[in-house]
Amino acid sequence: MKTRAAVAWEANKPLEIEEIELEGPKSGEVLLRIVATGVCHTDAYTLSGADPEGLFPSILGHEGGAIVVEVGPDVTSLKPGDHVIPLYTPECRTCSFCTSDKTNLCQAIRATQGRGLMPDSTSRFSKKGKPIYHFMGTSTFSEYTVLPEIAVAKIRKDAPLEKVCLLGCGITTGIGAVLNTAKVTPGSTVAVFGLGGVGLSVIQGAVMAKAGRIIAVDINPDKFEFAKQLGATDCVNPKEYDQPIQNVIVDLTKGGVDYSFEAVGNVNLMRAALECCHKGWGESTIIGVAGAGQEIATRPFQLVTGRVWRGSAFGGVKGRSQLPGYVDRYMDGEIKVDEFVTHVMGLEDINHAFHLMHEGESIRSVIQF
Amino acid sequence: MKTRAAVAWEANKPLEIEEIELEGPKSGEVLLRIVATGVCHTDAYTLSGADPEGLFPSILGHEGGAIVVEVGPDVTSLKPGDHVIPLYTPECRTCSFCTSDKTNLCQAIRATQGRGLMPDSTSRFSKKGKPIYHFMGTSTFSEYTVLPEIAVAKIRKDAPLEKVCLLGCGITTGIGAVLNTAKVTPGSTVAVFGLGGVGLSVIQGAVMAKAGRIIAVDINPDKFEFAKQLGATDCVNPKEYDQPIQNVIVDLTKGGVDYSFEAVGNVNLMRAALECCHKGWGESTIIGVAGAGQEIATRPFQLVTGRVWRGSAFGGVKGRSQLPGYVDRYMDGEIKVDEFVTHVMGLEDINHAFHLMHEGESIRSVIQF
Repeated sequence: MKTRAAVAWEANKPLEIEEIELEGPKSGEVLLRIVATGVCHTDAYTLSGADPEGLFPSILGHEGGAIVVEVGPDVTSLKPGDHVIPLYTPECRTCSFCTSDKTNLCQAIRATQGRGLMPDSTSRFSKKGKPIYHFMGTSTFSEYTVLPEIAVAKIRKDAPLEKVCLLGCGITTGIGAVLNTAKVTPGSTVAVFGLGGVGLSVIQGAVMAKAGRIIAVDINPDKFEFAKQLGATDCVNPKEYDQPIQNVIVDLTKGGVDYSFEAVGNVNLMRAALECCHKGWGESTIIGVAGAGQEIATRPFQLVTGRVWRGSAFGGVKGRSQLPGYVDRYMDGEIKVDEFVTHVMGLEDINHAFHLMHEGESIRSVIQF
Repeated sequence: MKTRAAVAWEANKPLEIEEIELEGPKSGEVLLRIVATGVCHTDAYTLSGADPEGLFPSILGHEGGAIVVEVGPDVTSLKPGDHVIPLYTPECRTCSFCTSDKTNLCQAIRATQGRGLMPDSTSRFSKKGKPIYHFMGTSTFSEYTVLPEIAVAKIRKDAPLEKVCLLGCGITTGIGAVLNTAKVTPGSTVAVFGLGGVGLSVIQGAVMAKAGRIIAVDINPDKFEFAKQLGATDCVNPKEYDQPIQNVIVDLTKGGVDYSFEAVGNVNLMRAALECCHKGWGESTIIGVAGAGQEIATRPFQLVTGRVWRGSAFGGVKGRSQLPGYVDRYMDGEIKVDEFVTHVMGLEDINHAFHLMHEGESIRSVIQF
């Protein structure tokens, strides 16, 4: 079949909107119609060419809201008409990761997904016979896309897909890092570095966890108003201080925070986030994705004196099992999503969405097909 | 009063055995007679001059078994004749660290202890009017020494002080890192880097935690026999492999270990210990003390994909509350201590004990006064 898609033909070039070929679902796969998709920094990172694992040409996009159109052979958990969110972190429910309660990093299709291919090592996308790679196993910048059944979370039909698509990555990542990974406790002090969609959702998660103090850190003070609306109690701009930001926060909190989160992808901020934690028990969670080959560093004394350094991917959320619950909490008003959608546009304007993100003018642009 | 002591007059010189002056206990302090003391790598580290916080002249030593001789005013929990183990990590029971169940790092006398002084900012040791610094708040290389009450763990009288002195540091540090810090679970796979007194005690702790597989790593194969006696299931010598040791262990365990421990103080091994952990859930605990200014590094991806990096000091053990239980477990045969004592000598031979340690010929030398 044909589908309209935004194609990344090569690194660091605008996406091109065109009609491409899409092969139907094979065994264990489903065909989805993407109703809406968010545009996330990870898409921009790969498009920039900085991602050493980035493949071109490809169909980017991984924050989708979709409807099942057709199911391939052997699909048992989905049927046409189901409303779903594509999962870049699948959940096969049988691998050693899925059966562990400590991780959500299902490895069932890791190898092929990392190579931009479906589990049978081929692509469903092509143009004039030339294959186009999948991206993160989702490729939501195409109106129709094919996914493995294990990479699709079925959700309730009354949830607006043009909103809950954002639960497919950023918002869930931020909230989950707080609730699942760090397990923030009531009354504790939290610092979050970076107030993009993920960092702002860390604030949401900290509020849900009943944190007593939530310190929002960003060099763009335009972000502070919304951060406060979400529940930040303090907003700190590192540019206003001469000393390292970790020292500022340690002073501000008389010893450091109980939990910190890095939601930028900057290895220096990752260090600052660790070092602003309280001696004896402070825990720092890395959420941001650093540039290729970059390393984090600190003195081991930071850990020996009781700080803990961990990381989180997709908020530790097992997608098929737990994402429907996030949708429920959105529908109950407990999770804010609508407020994150600052811009809505059609697929033809997707390059403008990237521009808005680069300029820090949007929290999230949502593409509606 | 007078006391016989091994004095570190300056860095990187042999200790000198001589008679020095000791002032009696002030308010909240106790006078101890040290019956026996271990000689630990931390003593050697400071003596070498590499410790930027090392002070000279000083009385080193921190693995002591002692008897209370006299108590100063306001001491309520100890009386003459009590058998005790000096604590370089005190337990005041009132600071925010002591009242937290997440840490043992009591801060009550941290500042003065770090400056080689008693809590009133003076030293009790001197020679011909010239003050000699305390070390780690314990100074067990003196036959008599003065400690704050909060830095003394009272233990049962039937425990041999010339053995349980080793519970004052290395053995407790290793076992506690497993049981308190990492909280190793039954059936799990453990790797320990470095088979000195601490690393060997990690093996003990892993056995107590019912680990399913215990991989001992050292470049000195002479250590392997005792490691196996204690319960190591695999012994690995990094010198026998061309590839990084973390890769060797990941291969050996088909994915990595559940828990790893660094008990050397080498920042490259700290990285290897983290990176040999299993994706999704592996946790690495730093126990060793690195050289001044050295830093640990890794790619943040290691943490984002589920590994956790933490550290441990004195095994996370709250000394006054929990160390008596370690003595009980030794008396019950659950913790091995006697086997760690490879050499026994008088104070006059203490420089030989340092020599044996440097050469890797001893596990622990115990000085008996």
